[in-house]
Amino acid sequence: MALINENYLKLKAGYLFPEIARRVKAFQERNPKASIIRLGIGDVVLPLVPAVVQAMEAAVQEMGTPKGFHGYGPEQGYPFFIDAILKNDFASRGIRLESTEIFVSDGSKCDAGNFQEIFSIENKVALTDPVYPVYLDTNVMAGRSGEILSSGHYRGIVYLPSTVENGFKPELPGEKVDLVYLCSPNNPTGAVLDRAELTKWVDYARKNQIILLFDAAYEAYITDPKIPHSIYEIEGADEVAVEFRSFSKTAGFTGTRCAYTVVPEKLKAKDAKGTAVALNPLWSRRHTTKFNGVSYPVQRGAAACYSPEGKIQIREQIDYYMTNARLIREGLESAGLQVFGGVHAPYIWLKTPKGLDSWSFFDKLLSECHVVGTPGAGFGPSGEGYFRLSAFGFREKIEEALERIGNRIKL
Amino acid sequence: MALINENYLKLKAGYLFPEIARRVKAFQERNPKASIIRLGIGDVVLPLVPAVVQAMEAAVQEMGTPKGFHGYGPEQGYPFFIDAILKNDFASRGIRLESTEIFVSDGSKCDAGNFQEIFSIENKVALTDPVYPVYLDTNVMAGRSGEILSSGHYRGIVYLPSTVENGFKPELPGEKVDLVYLCSPNNPTGAVLDRAELTKWVDYARKNQIILLFDAAYEAYITDPKIPHSIYEIEGADEVAVEFRSFSKTAGFTGTRCAYTVVPEKLKAKDAKGTAVALNPLWSRRHTTKFNGVSYPVQRGAAACYSPEGKIQIREQIDYYMTNARLIREGLESAGLQVFGGVHAPYIWLKTPKGLDSWSFFDKLLSECHVVGTPGAGFGPSGEGYFRLSAFGFREKIEEALERIGNRIKL
Repeated sequence: MALINENYLKLKAGYLFPEIARRVKAFQERNPKASIIRLGIGDVVLPLVPAVVQAMEAAVQEMGTPKGFHGYGPEQGYPFFIDAILKNDFASRGIRLESTEIFVSDGSKCDAGNFQEIFSIENKVALTDPVYPVYLDTNVMAGRSGEILSSGHYRGIVYLPSTVENGFKPELPGEKVDLVYLCSPNNPTGAVLDRAELTKWVDYARKNQIILLFDAAYEAYITDPKIPHSIYEIEGADEVAVEFRSFSKTAGFTGTRCAYTVVPEKLKAKDAKGTAVALNPLWSRRHTTKFNGVSYPVQRGAAACYSPEGKIQIREQIDYYMTNARLIREGLESAGLQVFGGVHAPYIWLKTPKGLDSWSFFDKLLSECHVVGTPGAGFGPSGEGYFRLSAFGFREKIEEALERIGNRIKL
Repeated sequence: MALINENYLKLKAGYLFPEIARRVKAFQERNPKASIIRLGIGDVVLPLVPAVVQAMEAAVQEMGTPKGFHGYGPEQGYPFFIDAILKNDFASRGIRLESTEIFVSDGSKCDAGNFQEIFSIENKVALTDPVYPVYLDTNVMAGRSGEILSSGHYRGIVYLPSTVENGFKPELPGEKVDLVYLCSPNNPTGAVLDRAELTKWVDYARKNQIILLFDAAYEAYITDPKIPHSIYEIEGADEVAVEFRSFSKTAGFTGTRCAYTVVPEKLKAKDAKGTAVALNPLWSRRHTTKFNGVSYPVQRGAAACYSPEGKIQIREQIDYYMTNARLIREGLESAGLQVFGGVHAPYIWLKTPKGLDSWSFFDKLLSECHVVGTPGAGFGPSGEGYFRLSAFGFREKIEEALERIGNRIKL
């Protein structure tokens, strides 16, 4: 008789985005004339840039010819693409990585979700709170947590609060942990870890033989040139950190699907006898056994992001979203709200007014302004009392949303 | 201190295809003038058909326009694609499935590898032997086996031999098991389970509350109209079976990446208390938490396989490969070899002559004929003494390989 993985039953039932969809639908049914503006889910709206479209079209045509056809490629990604990654994302910032340290994939969600597999179930996991829910959920599914408590915390997981009180800079864990998930620029708070903060984490990880799982999916949104884009800009990080990168938000690839993960050769954990084991071959084994490489036309499209035209076109899109972010910050501030983020990230994080819980503020914004955002509580217990708005939208929609908030919200 | 997943250390070190590559490279270095023909890895060679190319090109162009841009799609796949799957692969064969029972993915390797995650580590796994190595390796990595024995068997895994002695029809397990992997048409033996055999497995699974993981990646190669293409053609299979389907071999998508998995709503396993739990929502949770959908242009391309032109064009490619398969069968037989498969599958499975082990035959074929195949032992202990040749090749190469074998092999 087949038995299920019981850990799945521990997962909180109502996932964030389905609940948002349910409430929006109910509101729209009660108010059929209301024109709802969605700044909830962090999905891009601008089309793929011409350089990417051209490269993908050419690759699709190639695939239709006997000579240009590509069957199975290397699971880790094509050399033409990995070379472009190494040169543009790392060598340009003084970071030397080998091609064997890059693993191309179809998404950071997959990588951030799957990477825990190569670690023991016994490892203790710490994560900043609030944060992208995939880190937590995949560890719960794997069995690294106990039950969920009434506070919204899972037993056995170490939460590192990131709130207005600590300036959104999570403190080091106060207890022994083995794996730490960091996301900077942060989804959802928009906070960024600067060089000093990153150095604090790397030093801590080296001292305690901890692995950092560093999600840099939003690095392209960093505006201060002094802030590192990669954790490998910090000395010794290649001994303790994995880094996740994505083309989703950088180049509008949410529906095209491409990402990569960096697993340095120097990175090691221990086996049960205490012998050091390199993680790169373990991840390579996982990646080649359970994954078959990214679609060839998609890899060609992603590589075109590094062409001279591609770089310019993508930068324009990021600037467009960052102008949105600035407008949202300013608009909310002049409406009397307390806002964070939106400077090095496409997310604006606001403190809900008058101690409203985040779902009440969701309902308030929806009913008074017909604007949809994301309740902070959906990203973790410390997100309660906060709310996320995304800068991924068309300018005119953003402006209209802000006008409504300015005119209609009752604080 | 981070600890690794110790189960990874149980995996056999020398993986099949790297070892083949190593031997071929060494041979080529010693014989620089030898023109080597590769019939080893099961990768297609014919280009994407025009219907697929056109659909993908149109979709890439759409992605470059504000109106036609697609961001995150449903993780389970777009309705236009799922509807085409339901109509063409199932309704046409009298099988009624709901759209919620289809999960589109980027590859059957991923699905066949990941599906075990939703089951308890305590479940006992059975698999036919020899078979596609991913089923076994992913269960070893998850911890459902003990160490590997000198016989090549992993402790705790139930092997169901599929050999010339039982006509490549594996017997039912002689002991209690929970999950059974079946692959038909089979990789590597080319054997197919007919209606009677499939019924035997479904009845056994229903009686013993076992889950069947049925890999039908090669169903398009079945030539006898009486043989089912889907396990759901067998009554009651929707209570016990998951089915994996792929566009890789059907439509030459090995480098384009698209597949799907069927998880019927009726399919249930038990929790630790013995309560029945539906597997569809569990897999849905896994799929939506760790995967972000298949690239939109790829889904458009795969959907085009079901257009009237697409069907004809794809059928021509399958016929081409199946003509190759027939030629290989005939060529090897007239060279005095004992061959199987190649009738409902693109793989020819041969008994190595004079009791040679499969790696010795590999070396013999390489050195005498400069032809590369795959040693049967790479697919499991019962593959020892067998050898796989793939029909995925250009006709002229296949013909040349057969000529060399006919003229040069010393039996």
